[in-house]
Amino acid sequence: MSTTSKATTATSWQAGSGSVDDETLRRIDRWWRAANYLSVGQIYLLDNPLLREPLTRDHVKPRLLGHWGTTPGLNFLYAHLNRAVAERSQSTIYVTGPGHGGPGLVASSYLDGTYSETYSDITEDEEGLRRLFRQFSFPGGIPSHVAPETPGSIHEGGELGYALSHAYGAAFDNPDLLVATVIGDGEAETGPLATSWHSNKFVNPAQDGVVLPILHLNGYKIANPTVLARISDDELTALMHGYGHKPHVFVGGFDPEESHVEVHRRFATMLDEVLDEIAEIKARAAAGDVSRPLWPMIVFRTPKGWTGPDEIDGKKTTGSWRAHQVPLANARDTEEHLEVLEKWLESYQVSELFDATGGLDPDIRALAPTGDLRMSANPHANGGVLLRDLRLPDFRDFAVDVPTPGGSFAEAPRILGNFLTEVVRRNPDNFRIFGPDETASNRLQAVFEVTDKQWNAEFYGPDVDEHMSRAGRVMEMLSEHQCQGWLEGYLLTGRHGLFTSYEAFIHIVDSMFNQHAKWLKVTNDIPWRRPIASLNYLLSSHVWRQDHNGFSHQDPGFIDHVVNKKAEVVRVYLPPDANTLLSTYDHCLRSRQYVNVVVSGKQPAPNFLTMEQAVAHCTRGLGIWDWAGSEVAGEKPDVVLAAAGDVPTLEVLAAADILRREIPDLKVRVINVVDLMRLQDEREHPHGLSDKQFDGLFTADRPVIFAYHGYPWLIHRLTYRRRGHANIHVRGYKEEGTTTTPFDMVMLNDLDRYHLVIDVIDRVESLGTAYAGLRQEMVDARIRAREYTREHGDDIPEVRDWVWPDAQDLADSGQVDATAATGGDNE
Amino acid sequence: MSTTSKATTATSWQAGSGSVDDETLRRIDRWWRAANYLSVGQIYLLDNPLLREPLTRDHVKPRLLGHWGTTPGLNFLYAHLNRAVAERSQSTIYVTGPGHGGPGLVASSYLDGTYSETYSDITEDEEGLRRLFRQFSFPGGIPSHVAPETPGSIHEGGELGYALSHAYGAAFDNPDLLVATVIGDGEAETGPLATSWHSNKFVNPAQDGVVLPILHLNGYKIANPTVLARISDDELTALMHGYGHKPHVFVGGFDPEESHVEVHRRFATMLDEVLDEIAEIKARAAAGDVSRPLWPMIVFRTPKGWTGPDEIDGKKTTGSWRAHQVPLANARDTEEHLEVLEKWLESYQVSELFDATGGLDPDIRALAPTGDLRMSANPHANGGVLLRDLRLPDFRDFAVDVPTPGGSFAEAPRILGNFLTEVVRRNPDNFRIFGPDETASNRLQAVFEVTDKQWNAEFYGPDVDEHMSRAGRVMEMLSEHQCQGWLEGYLLTGRHGLFTSYEAFIHIVDSMFNQHAKWLKVTNDIPWRRPIASLNYLLSSHVWRQDHNGFSHQDPGFIDHVVNKKAEVVRVYLPPDANTLLSTYDHCLRSRQYVNVVVSGKQPAPNFLTMEQAVAHCTRGLGIWDWAGSEVAGEKPDVVLAAAGDVPTLEVLAAADILRREIPDLKVRVINVVDLMRLQDEREHPHGLSDKQFDGLFTADRPVIFAYHGYPWLIHRLTYRRRGHANIHVRGYKEEGTTTTPFDMVMLNDLDRYHLVIDVIDRVESLGTAYAGLRQEMVDARIRAREYTREHGDDIPEVRDWVWPDAQDLADSGQVDATAATGGDNE
Repeated sequence: MSTTSKATTATSWQAGSGSVDDETLRRIDRWWRAANYLSVGQIYLLDNPLLREPLTRDHVKPRLLGHWGTTPGLNFLYAHLNRAVAERSQSTIYVTGPGHGGPGLVASSYLDGTYSETYSDITEDEEGLRRLFRQFSFPGGIPSHVAPETPGSIHEGGELGYALSHAYGAAFDNPDLLVATVIGDGEAETGPLATSWHSNKFVNPAQDGVVLPILHLNGYKIANPTVLARISDDELTALMHGYGHKPHVFVGGFDPEESHVEVHRRFATMLDEVLDEIAEIKARAAAGDVSRPLWPMIVFRTPKGWTGPDEIDGKKTTGSWRAHQVPLANARDTEEHLEVLEKWLESYQVSELFDATGGLDPDIRALAPTGDLRMSANPHANGGVLLRDLRLPDFRDFAVDVPTPGGSFAEAPRILGNFLTEVVRRNPDNFRIFGPDETASNRLQAVFEVTDKQWNAEFYGPDVDEHMSRAGRVMEMLSEHQCQGWLEGYLLTGRHGLFTSYEAFIHIVDSMFNQHAKWLKVTNDIPWRRPIASLNYLLSSHVWRQDHNGFSHQDPGFIDHVVNKKAEVVRVYLPPDANTLLSTYDHCLRSRQYVNVVVSGKQPAPNFLTMEQAVAHCTRGLGIWDWAGSEVAGEKPDVVLAAAGDVPTLEVLAAADILRREIPDLKVRVINVVDLMRLQDEREHPHGLSDKQFDGLFTADRPVIFAYHGYPWLIHRLTYRRRGHANIHVRGYKEEGTTTTPFDMVMLNDLDRYHLVIDVIDRVESLGTAYAGLRQEMVDARIRAREYTREHGDDIPEVRDWVWPDAQDLADSGQVDATAATGGDNE
Repeated sequence: MSTTSKATTATSWQAGSGSVDDETLRRIDRWWRAANYLSVGQIYLLDNPLLREPLTRDHVKPRLLGHWGTTPGLNFLYAHLNRAVAERSQSTIYVTGPGHGGPGLVASSYLDGTYSETYSDITEDEEGLRRLFRQFSFPGGIPSHVAPETPGSIHEGGELGYALSHAYGAAFDNPDLLVATVIGDGEAETGPLATSWHSNKFVNPAQDGVVLPILHLNGYKIANPTVLARISDDELTALMHGYGHKPHVFVGGFDPEESHVEVHRRFATMLDEVLDEIAEIKARAAAGDVSRPLWPMIVFRTPKGWTGPDEIDGKKTTGSWRAHQVPLANARDTEEHLEVLEKWLESYQVSELFDATGGLDPDIRALAPTGDLRMSANPHANGGVLLRDLRLPDFRDFAVDVPTPGGSFAEAPRILGNFLTEVVRRNPDNFRIFGPDETASNRLQAVFEVTDKQWNAEFYGPDVDEHMSRAGRVMEMLSEHQCQGWLEGYLLTGRHGLFTSYEAFIHIVDSMFNQHAKWLKVTNDIPWRRPIASLNYLLSSHVWRQDHNGFSHQDPGFIDHVVNKKAEVVRVYLPPDANTLLSTYDHCLRSRQYVNVVVSGKQPAPNFLTMEQAVAHCTRGLGIWDWAGSEVAGEKPDVVLAAAGDVPTLEVLAAADILRREIPDLKVRVINVVDLMRLQDEREHPHGLSDKQFDGLFTADRPVIFAYHGYPWLIHRLTYRRRGHANIHVRGYKEEGTTTTPFDMVMLNDLDRYHLVIDVIDRVESLGTAYAGLRQEMVDARIRAREYTREHGDDIPEVRDWVWPDAQDLADSGQVDATAATGGDNE
């Protein structure tokens, strides 16, 4: 596979020749037989790859691991697409929804030559075949599913449900690309897949590529029939029509009287009709009609395990769920199964497929297109080779003015929106923003100055359809699964983007994140897979400010979920204000092969750092805020107040303010953490601090009161190896949250300024009992604040209107107003 | 609301009277106006609840929080359902998909009297109305969404997507219950909702209740149109037909010329048609035809924010996304908005709805049914009041024989399956097992001796449709979302069940788990909500044994996710063998108000404890396995080997075996942990050990090598406050897993017996350098084991065939065979 190609320059969207001759049909069948043979061989054979000698138990793997049932259908489709792709020179990638059919995709890429080009050890001869078979699902070998190791794949075959989302992500902004997407009828039962059909309402037929969904109804899952295979044809076609598709139904393999050539003729003819319809749609779009067409799709109904043994142990196998995994579980243990296996393998007539040395018959190879047109070699399926850097403006140009710490207010994401507006403008075809109906809610609406939300369902008019058009950089559908799946597909094919969502509901894609993080981890060790752009999250409706929504919308645990994955692929940032958010996001957009989680509230909040300070702070990832503390140069602090997250930062500063006023001799160090991974040991994360650095900041023996955005445990987990760990006392979210004002919310979780002061008094031994009075004042202040909210429905003014003391003059003169940021200049 | 009721004894499924008179239609309209008025009042008003004086800014809440747009539609439907429920005496619950319409459901339950019965402070007079308005989305008040606090709800209004799944869960085994389910068109875009329409293929029309889906197309989300509102009527009805429904389309509110009475007449007539169709289906089913009917559903197309202000600030509001949240954001700040608000409130003609004291006009109240037939008072929506204990057999009767530790083998879930078989038999109408096509794969197939998988799509015949019928206790659909949603709905309406799934893919429902755990936490503090049965997971395809699947199927992080929720509602169990699994699950099935996560592998594994020992071990939750260690009575151990999880237990025992042989003087303590929460501090979890207990087991100063099933961090997190924490060294899963044999897998993650011995040598200071030779042997053994797998594709016999020494005699005589359990007696 080429690792430096540009996107293929095939002439796309040609009409077909109209008919397929018998010779080609026979060639298709021979390819299919070869692919099926190689698939069965991978699952079962340790040796004797060309069946030169009678099959013995020793030729059979001791542990039979893999999935046969879906594979022959995948191979059939791959063979036919080969023919059509070659004939039309149509750049095409193949997305394998039923990714457990791994042997099929490996077989197909072996047959078109890509596999041996990619893995030189897997040669095109008998020894290569032996290795090909042996390595499959074998210790030290390759996974049983379609995987990053499989040439031509952008879609890990682990979890089911995301084939169409990935396919559409790949198609966006690739106007010449066909994404042939096989959807298993098992996968079709999942929620994410069920809604992903509607992706066609978000496609622009001129600017975007084409997804051809192929619903493979082989009828069964692990041990059950599938829903879509057991509803009437009438309901099934209605469903597809309802999803906005024109279904073409193919039924093959159930009639033993019909020759393979006839079966192939029927499918090839239908495939040509489908591709001609697509070519017509594309021609109409090129002529200016970009309204949503009725996109064709294929229903492909076949027996499960097609071409496998009809019966095993007297039970129907082919055409049943029993064909799902390894139909002959005892092929190594019983003569009976061994015999069935041998007959099965022989049925493909291997001697007609490979020559005496194990080389593939060139006539079979000739079915496939050549070079980058091979679906396994298409550079879009190795997106890193097509990746262009984003053209980024200087983020410093978008800085907010910070005359003094706390001396101005902003909604940080709104400022980021200004920056992203310029990113969108400069990168009109390889950068998109994804979100479930929350781009404006999350304050990125400035981007609508230069782009729209892409939408291709009906329009009602400008009074209700604001910032919407048939082409735009913002993708909004109320499905986190779609947003994540689209973005993954977009990134995996070499583009850039971000996903903005509610912090609580990003858990909806926990499992998708897992798969993507695993993909990144594995591809880091696959030299021919080139790095792709990072997957960037912006979580700006976060746990502390669910005033409108309450407890059900509060969950900061996505961070915990993320840090379970390999340190080399995950990053978590908690910028405390607007300029740090700008600096952080610039970094994220430049990075590769990471998942970057950025949490930054969308409510008006004080800015603390000038841009220069912000850059320095973000570069270090964490640091002492001298201006906020009350340290004495050269002396150890009495206590460290640390914060990670915007709301905790505010409360820590307010606590520091109280301490400076009330206990002026107390040496307080204030630390702010942007890059959460800095807390970890350098042996555990590449961003981690050394113990010496850590102790230099947090001390090894002074109390640390740590105000953290999320569940407090995580800070302990990240720091448990530090010398001073026993002194670290963390305040964070502890699942207490049925309230509606910001300060009531932090009080419920003991993260408020007053409680932080209490924590200091309780933990700094040198204070003794001298400050019992102050402690009581803090307790009273909390009670007063709580009562005020219950009486007035708003936070007590002494809290609501608090500003950092340096900014008090500006506040008094009306130059700083927390509420001013809400409707500010950016809308 | 009654808290002790039996299920209502309404005569169900009557046909309607055929027409609705004008007086009733006017009554419906007055109910609707009253509900809308109360909804607007909740969102905006602090005071002046009956508009007795001109509205002033002080009457308006300082923080306007809530959602108007969906509410009038919800109120409309509630009003009409009231009429039909009363007329037909049809037991009905109302599931509010668009749960952000919280004010509407509170208003409706106030109007039918339930609210004041439930909350005596919210009286039916002016003062009660004032409190009703004030408490909404107010500090110390109630949430803005439909919530556990809302009478009549089983469905938290936080996250969108699960309305239909919950509804079907409620309907199963409630043959007389109608579940009227409103689905927002925003929610309809989510994946889980999109597939949940297919739930109708799993309903038995005789044995189960009826879900009536009402798709509320108000056309807009937060800032966008919705997909289903912007496709053609043709596509929409095709989609519903494809989902297996007969759609009845209603359009209301767009014609200003049509009187409200006429609008109500059209809807009432349609609703009667729909309910008559349902009654016919039910009659057919009662007569024996339980095949899947074409269930009716309603498309309910209305303006968003119907009856609200047409325009605000010159922009179209009603009938647009601008009506979504709080349309008059500045009602307290500007005269203009205040005036609009006053007119809006006045438009409902409050003086016609309430009398001078604030009492509701009895004529309006008369629309609602009475007693438990009120949808807000239906006992099914407070399932704890209907909950019956399971009739459980004695789990001890299902014990496996364990002649000596390791002296027999079993697939633990298969043994559990035997127990569950008897549970199913004894509880034929209130216990179900849910799973995504994995009941047999997860080894619970014994249950098919007494029940089937419930399925109501097409049947093909017994050669492929094993253990399937139109009525059965096992529910399998390839959607974890559906399994979870159905089970939640089933539990919330007072029944019992469990969910078996792959460990990695249970993350698919992370977010649903969050909501359910939050529901349990909140209901613990709501006295009228009675406890419900726990939600039980069985994760038996776990991280260590993905031989067929590999890296993509490996993730033990669900446990980490779960323990972020309130300690009072979560429990995690890792039974090490079959008898402990039996004891654990018996406990789980008896428990209430928890989420119980049980992880237990499905592969053949040795049994260690007799049933008597297992009960004692599970009762303690953790304990020293004397027989495995080499302690000297009365002396402190030199090292502690701890294990949590079945695979870690095996490796720890094998390591202990090596140590006993190679370093006979070393005093090794072996601890096994079943109940993970025991590790936590007693102040943090009700199951937590005291420090004294913990130190007594783990010591405060000896090295602890802890072999853990999941990500190692969790053990640190649970134990970081313990005195000996610095000595605890954890081995667990660290995202290394591309291999296919069990021992290769544990080696990749350094959890294997040889590495555990190395850990002991490295950490027990007294061993000094005397055992450098043994250490090297361990290193060599690992290399040898690794090489063996790569050569033979299987684990090295010395590992694969290892048994605990006490069982060696049995093994030598062929009485213990690890492979024997696979096809054992239970199939």
